[in-house]
Amino acid sequence: MAKIQKPRRPKAETPKGFRDYFGADVTERKAMLDKIAEVYHRYGFDPLESSAVETLDALGKYLPDVDRPNAGVFAWQEEDGDWLALRYDLTAPLARVAAQFRNDLPTPYRRYAMGPVWRNEKPGPGRFRQFYQCDADTVGAASVAADAEICAMLSDALETVGIPRGDYIVRVNNRKVLNGVMEVAGVLDPADPEKFAHERGIVLRAIDKLDRLGPEGVRALLGKGRKDESGDFTEGAGLSQDQAEVVMGFMAARRDTGADTCSRLRELVAGSRIGEEGVAELETIADLLSAQGYGPDRIVLDPSVVRGLGYYTGPVFEAELTFEILDEKGRPRQFGSVAGGGRYDDLVKRFTGQAVPATGVSIGVDRLLAALRAKGRAGDRLQGPVIVTVMDRDRMADYQAMVGELRSAGIRAEVYLGNPKNFGNQLKYADKRNSPIAIIQGADEAARGVVQIKDLVLGAKIAERASLEEWKSQPAQFEAARADMVTEVGRLLAQDKDTAP
Amino acid sequence: MAKIQKPRRPKAETPKGFRDYFGADVTERKAMLDKIAEVYHRYGFDPLESSAVETLDALGKYLPDVDRPNAGVFAWQEEDGDWLALRYDLTAPLARVAAQFRNDLPTPYRRYAMGPVWRNEKPGPGRFRQFYQCDADTVGAASVAADAEICAMLSDALETVGIPRGDYIVRVNNRKVLNGVMEVAGVLDPADPEKFAHERGIVLRAIDKLDRLGPEGVRALLGKGRKDESGDFTEGAGLSQDQAEVVMGFMAARRDTGADTCSRLRELVAGSRIGEEGVAELETIADLLSAQGYGPDRIVLDPSVVRGLGYYTGPVFEAELTFEILDEKGRPRQFGSVAGGGRYDDLVKRFTGQAVPATGVSIGVDRLLAALRAKGRAGDRLQGPVIVTVMDRDRMADYQAMVGELRSAGIRAEVYLGNPKNFGNQLKYADKRNSPIAIIQGADEAARGVVQIKDLVLGAKIAERASLEEWKSQPAQFEAARADMVTEVGRLLAQDKDTAP
Repeated sequence: MAKIQKPRRPKAETPKGFRDYFGADVTERKAMLDKIAEVYHRYGFDPLESSAVETLDALGKYLPDVDRPNAGVFAWQEEDGDWLALRYDLTAPLARVAAQFRNDLPTPYRRYAMGPVWRNEKPGPGRFRQFYQCDADTVGAASVAADAEICAMLSDALETVGIPRGDYIVRVNNRKVLNGVMEVAGVLDPADPEKFAHERGIVLRAIDKLDRLGPEGVRALLGKGRKDESGDFTEGAGLSQDQAEVVMGFMAARRDTGADTCSRLRELVAGSRIGEEGVAELETIADLLSAQGYGPDRIVLDPSVVRGLGYYTGPVFEAELTFEILDEKGRPRQFGSVAGGGRYDDLVKRFTGQAVPATGVSIGVDRLLAALRAKGRAGDRLQGPVIVTVMDRDRMADYQAMVGELRSAGIRAEVYLGNPKNFGNQLKYADKRNSPIAIIQGADEAARGVVQIKDLVLGAKIAERASLEEWKSQPAQFEAARADMVTEVGRLLAQDKDTAP
Repeated sequence: MAKIQKPRRPKAETPKGFRDYFGADVTERKAMLDKIAEVYHRYGFDPLESSAVETLDALGKYLPDVDRPNAGVFAWQEEDGDWLALRYDLTAPLARVAAQFRNDLPTPYRRYAMGPVWRNEKPGPGRFRQFYQCDADTVGAASVAADAEICAMLSDALETVGIPRGDYIVRVNNRKVLNGVMEVAGVLDPADPEKFAHERGIVLRAIDKLDRLGPEGVRALLGKGRKDESGDFTEGAGLSQDQAEVVMGFMAARRDTGADTCSRLRELVAGSRIGEEGVAELETIADLLSAQGYGPDRIVLDPSVVRGLGYYTGPVFEAELTFEILDEKGRPRQFGSVAGGGRYDDLVKRFTGQAVPATGVSIGVDRLLAALRAKGRAGDRLQGPVIVTVMDRDRMADYQAMVGELRSAGIRAEVYLGNPKNFGNQLKYADKRNSPIAIIQGADEAARGVVQIKDLVLGAKIAERASLEEWKSQPAQFEAARADMVTEVGRLLAQDKDTAP
């Protein structure tokens, strides 16, 4: 007989590069974001939840002559020919909203946004194609007081979620100072901003490689170029030694106090109008922060901060966690950056033609949560419910009444709803759920008006390490009157909480 | 001279059928979902946040021979040829997760999920292509105790968010009873379930039209067919009059008590095994609920509940709000359904080949929020921050110190960061932000160590209706010592709260 072909079954798989979040993964992230939102709220920022889908046109970045956007975003074509796409960050949608609702929104418009963004990138270990961002931006404020405020708020947010002072530092720099340095180094001509763009690109990339190549490697890239170990040659920016020293000096300009750092920067950019303006802005930021008590234990001026810098036009900032964790090979290393941002004055202009000053910060939600776990401030398993076991299938109504009473007292509780035949499976279920307590009532207990209360937390401890004496003195299961069940369960839960590590 | 063509600017527009949520729209929905989550948590449900993107294959519903899924979902093809899509509900992803992680998840698996879903449908007024769902499901529990639990939880959730008892009703029915009715009516043959599928479809659609067509219209559709006013003829199911009366009797089977309703249903399905099983299940559900105190003021058996019924295989339920609101023409009408669900035992089977019993409920987030607004339990504007105005641009550090102090006292506050030249603009801004208080300190006040505190709430009230005497006796602006600023602001805010409508 010919075998009948079975219908093909779909694969039960999260798409490549995506993931699902269960239990505590969801609640801990939510608790962290709630705390951050409370800080943002106190600073006068309003929530905005823009649509996850944007027109590709509004997202920008894509060439109009390419048939299909080829990288970076998930996009699809509508039947009417329009291209739609999932947002890849929360800043591009903000620019669209600020332009679209410019007549209705207050000026300045302070908003925060939290939610998933999507990147159509090759997934890798720990690199996902959907992840959370948490942003706060001020649109329409030209004053660097707005930048200072964002830095102070970032500092408050980190402490509020549980990163103690001393375990983080917010570092501030200014893109204008860097432009001043470029001018002094001869690779920026204020009269012709497009000139030397190629050389400036090389200088920026060289600065970004300081960590990896060291000062000598950077110096080579600023000058004639550099041959790496493999023999490959990287073209240099062609600066003279004097010019290169200006750039090198910029990266090393941080001094013990903000005032001294600014003095040093002022020397380096002497003669450049944009550079001097940048230093003056840094001084204002430092003054404003210090007037509010944000000293160098929380926020410092640091010229070595060079964020991608793509669209930044003024102050840039970065929050770094300064404690050490062990890397995958067990070596201690600094945790590193968890948030960054800066001033970008040209994003809204794409839509309206008018420049709108804006500044903001984005917190890397997954990295900050990982940091809290590394510090032991998150990462607990979700506390499971009290499980009322089912000894007698026909008395389900009694068991339901028990959980009803427990819930009315605010206690998380459920009846075992699987097949009750095998009692061992019920206890295995309670274990899998991380349940603190199981309630047992068979026909005998029901007749006597009592329940058995099984302390699963204590039971686990005893199983792990207790002696026979302790076992006897601390029974992990005891009998209580049915009428006292809620009180006894409440007492046990409070006790577990007290003895929690 | 030839005009230089300007580069084309993108349109600043939310894509058609999508929308952005501002301020209170975000916080009120969040507050409502937080309350619901707390109820779900207390019932032992764990959160799950699955990826927003699924393989089209896992979502199902689409024909394998169609080149591109043509309707319902937003989908796109990856470079490797796979099709991905945005989830259109939270149940399909749950089925995928339950299959994928079946060896790791507890059985039964109780989970809740809240988040946006996307539908590629023609947008219309009040119909959006991205909206929130809020689901709770129990996977792996065959017992109708799981269905009863979901109904109780739904009732608790509605009361917890602010729908008082008496303003809602949860109605319960059972698909098996309907199948029994079909059997008795001669359009279901248990030995050949595929037979009469066409007739059953007509019966189902007829039942669904009771509201619109009335009993006579439905009776016609159950029999030979029906000609509507336009003259169009709709084919009937071809039932005899006796058969049709069974179906009509089913829709009208609700009695004053659950027990009486069940007796009536038992008469109607006499002789049908599946029908009798369904009635027994309804009896069990009613018993379990009544043991927990959920009487007919909250949850009733109602055979007229016929939800889409597509994939439901057992109990179905629906929560309806029973108070009246005015429709767009000013006529009173019942608010209607805000949540629904039921038992679906075949969804996980698609992936694994094994039937997995499951039951769950989905709350219509936008509709429930609209109901809370209709009841005056939501819909306030977001309270704005205290605004510290800028009288003297050079004293920004002083103003920042003021907001710093206010925030430390837990008071939402900000410095005006727009161009401070025009003081009127600062007050207009405060108005747009719904600010309760403005703080003013010019050079004169600074020299005397005082601030002006302007009560914007009182000011608005006075402007609206106060007499000159009231104006004088309740000054909307007063002077306070700089050192007392925080105390005075706190006092005013508490007072505003007390006198809020």
